[in-house]
Amino acid sequence: MAATVDPDRSAWDVIVLGGAAAGENAAQYASRFSGLSSVLVEDALLGGECSYWACMPSKALLRPVEVVDAAARLPGVSAELRAAEVLARRDRVINHLDDGSQVSWALGAGIDVVRGYGRLAGERTVDVTRPDGSVRTLTARHAVVVDTGSRPAVPDVPGLRAALPWTSRDVTTMREVPRRVVVLGGGVVACESATWLRGLGASEVSVVHRGDRLLSRQEPFAGELVGEALRETGVRLLPGRNFSRVKRSDPAGTGHGRVHGGEVTVTLDDGTVLVADELVVATGRVPNTEDIGLDTVGLDPGGNLPVDDHQCVRGVTGDWLYAVGDVCGRALLTHMGKYQARIAGEVIAARARGAAELPSAAAGHVGLPQVVFTDPEVGSAGTTEAQAREAGVDVEVVEYDLAALAGTYVLREDYRGRAKLVVDRASDTVVGATFAGAGIAELVHSATTAIVGRIPVSTLWHVVPSYPTVSEIWLRLLETLRAQRHEAGRE
Amino acid sequence: MAATVDPDRSAWDVIVLGGAAAGENAAQYASRFSGLSSVLVEDALLGGECSYWACMPSKALLRPVEVVDAAARLPGVSAELRAAEVLARRDRVINHLDDGSQVSWALGAGIDVVRGYGRLAGERTVDVTRPDGSVRTLTARHAVVVDTGSRPAVPDVPGLRAALPWTSRDVTTMREVPRRVVVLGGGVVACESATWLRGLGASEVSVVHRGDRLLSRQEPFAGELVGEALRETGVRLLPGRNFSRVKRSDPAGTGHGRVHGGEVTVTLDDGTVLVADELVVATGRVPNTEDIGLDTVGLDPGGNLPVDDHQCVRGVTGDWLYAVGDVCGRALLTHMGKYQARIAGEVIAARARGAAELPSAAAGHVGLPQVVFTDPEVGSAGTTEAQAREAGVDVEVVEYDLAALAGTYVLREDYRGRAKLVVDRASDTVVGATFAGAGIAELVHSATTAIVGRIPVSTLWHVVPSYPTVSEIWLRLLETLRAQRHEAGRE
Repeated sequence: MAATVDPDRSAWDVIVLGGAAAGENAAQYASRFSGLSSVLVEDALLGGECSYWACMPSKALLRPVEVVDAAARLPGVSAELRAAEVLARRDRVINHLDDGSQVSWALGAGIDVVRGYGRLAGERTVDVTRPDGSVRTLTARHAVVVDTGSRPAVPDVPGLRAALPWTSRDVTTMREVPRRVVVLGGGVVACESATWLRGLGASEVSVVHRGDRLLSRQEPFAGELVGEALRETGVRLLPGRNFSRVKRSDPAGTGHGRVHGGEVTVTLDDGTVLVADELVVATGRVPNTEDIGLDTVGLDPGGNLPVDDHQCVRGVTGDWLYAVGDVCGRALLTHMGKYQARIAGEVIAARARGAAELPSAAAGHVGLPQVVFTDPEVGSAGTTEAQAREAGVDVEVVEYDLAALAGTYVLREDYRGRAKLVVDRASDTVVGATFAGAGIAELVHSATTAIVGRIPVSTLWHVVPSYPTVSEIWLRLLETLRAQRHEAGRE
Repeated sequence: MAATVDPDRSAWDVIVLGGAAAGENAAQYASRFSGLSSVLVEDALLGGECSYWACMPSKALLRPVEVVDAAARLPGVSAELRAAEVLARRDRVINHLDDGSQVSWALGAGIDVVRGYGRLAGERTVDVTRPDGSVRTLTARHAVVVDTGSRPAVPDVPGLRAALPWTSRDVTTMREVPRRVVVLGGGVVACESATWLRGLGASEVSVVHRGDRLLSRQEPFAGELVGEALRETGVRLLPGRNFSRVKRSDPAGTGHGRVHGGEVTVTLDDGTVLVADELVVATGRVPNTEDIGLDTVGLDPGGNLPVDDHQCVRGVTGDWLYAVGDVCGRALLTHMGKYQARIAGEVIAARARGAAELPSAAAGHVGLPQVVFTDPEVGSAGTTEAQAREAGVDVEVVEYDLAALAGTYVLREDYRGRAKLVVDRASDTVVGATFAGAGIAELVHSATTAIVGRIPVSTLWHVVPSYPTVSEIWLRLLETLRAQRHEAGRE
């Protein structure tokens, strides 16, 4: 579907620069009840990173590993995994990197699609460089929304770029499982990809990360539990270290998701030498803002696009330029990008009809859920204890062993996990929750609900968890909190 | 541990008649911060039905079936189940019907245990008939809590009792898997036991139930989806029917959890004849109130014990008699019994110290979560649409296909499921939620949180679900609700 729009049309109410998940939502929410016209400008695949190179393929690779692991921990059940079939299912989940169904969705929702690379070209104006090199100028009557996303950062280590390391895109869409892999990084992508690489048969997986534990933005026990579990599956963890230099005997691009050329030798900053067949670099992301025409609207190229609570880009007058998703640098999570996009879309529609009150994304700074699909899974909402204390909030914390529940006892043998609540003393509400353990992914939403709903602890006390589920952790946490308060003479 | 208490001691602050899960909680909560002494009177196993013959063994049998089923729906994964090992693990989960660890827990919590059959014997008095037949009289300074629970009801069908059918106790603790089974009933026990019987290898499983669908207290789609799935695994459903007569060639008790004697022939009320090796009767429960001395305190034996919101038994003066769990007939669910027990324990402690304000179990009528561990799982909180309308509440409902989510798409192939919210128009809060599908068990707690916390729909809108999880159903339901309102011109 190269041309999905009248090639001569040049004006829409709303132009969305980048048709990833958030951009799609911004267009949808701007137009769905308002009648505003909208267009997505995208030079790659509609649906973006999440649909093709992040959430969806990673979950497709992790889910079979999770089920086989669950089976291995249940006497009476045995399971086997066939990696080639898992990769084939992953290909179906990412629709073989064909965005036809997303284009159909957009058109069906009344959203136009223009293929090409878009750049801002002054107020309410976007220049699109088409695949044939010609430039088409689009103008927006109401708003332009930037959703150009981010890309993997590759650190400046001698020999690293020349070695053609895999990034998140390659490891999610890999077409073969490297035998020996070195992963650089200790965050979500590093932990998840180490899990599926090992689970799908890589015999040597090493994870090199600078900090002293994995998942350093989470409560400390989360990274500790994930690290412990990775080590038990045979993954080698090398904390407190970094790549010093990289040498690949015969670097050669052999196609996306294929092992690139010959053996790689990585020397770490402590002198350790690792030899592998492939590298995965998972050291964060860079917003795509250098070449999107920010200078034409008075902004500096590069860096995040700061926004207000209406997702309007700061420093641009006239309330016409919005940004959503990774490019804002607020929370590099698909669902938060989509949330920002819903707000942006609604704000645009509200401003177009001259509404007095505008929706606000302020709640998005509060709830902020995340699930890391490692084994154990790590799920969190709100803030960690450290973040709360750093922000000067007077908090009280409570932890409990997830293994000490009927609901986890029946789930698998030797269950390991931990949970924590961070309670704001002033309002007596939960402001943060972290769960690390098998089967906690859906539990996070109860925490997000409690946090955003600002439900007092005294009310949570009556929110009964069903037995025997993992949710009973709530009862245990609240009981323990109460016992702590009683001991401290405060209840 | 026959004698765990000074045999001459006769007075405690609190006596709990029945040491099941709820009774244990009542004792714990009455004494844990108050210093009140308490004793559990139990003639069977401390921990009761839930620990040995209900929640725990059923989940231990269902979890392996669930994992094998999940594997079967993931290309690249294959799994096998060995029934004998599953039964052996179930035996470990129920601690081989030994309650030693529960007795240790009670004693460790400062709660005494008296073995024997207890009966009320006037105000604040309990007579305990010991295993040797002698009677010991206990008196309570503050309160007596009744937690005598319930037992399976066996309907009055010619030949049924003589055929020695299995009840929930036998089918949860079965020591062999019958080849051909007929289950009578369409509720939770019937659906769950049909699932594990078939999953563990019973070659012919028939479910006979009077209504037109299974799980008749849930939203209609729940029972329909469970019925559809059971049929696909080969279970024969016979709705709208009942047993007319039963004949067993050679009824003989061959030990608990063993197939009892010879072939059974069941004739249904429509003339259908079923031949099986064993029957399971799952047609509800009867409270254990006939022989607990209710007449000595002015109450009629039999039936449920009606209680107020402090769990005090109605019709008895002096605020000394409480009831918790199944015996109240409010919600035959372990977690609700335990919730009632926490309230009762706290009320007892509060009254003992002369507190002006008393805790109330009123919230327990609102949240009421339940998870049925069938495949698909059925989870609900609050009320169904039908129950709300019957109660005269002006509600608005919204449904969504659980299969139409990224979070379920990655979970398994051919995912099937549905979700529904019931919204009270007056307060614009959710008063009921039902989810039917794989992986929804922990999702229920978010609904219970929203319902008990009375979070307005406008706030739920900012409770972002993590992507890709099943929790995204919340976003889809709220989006659909909004679209419905927009169409109706109300938003």
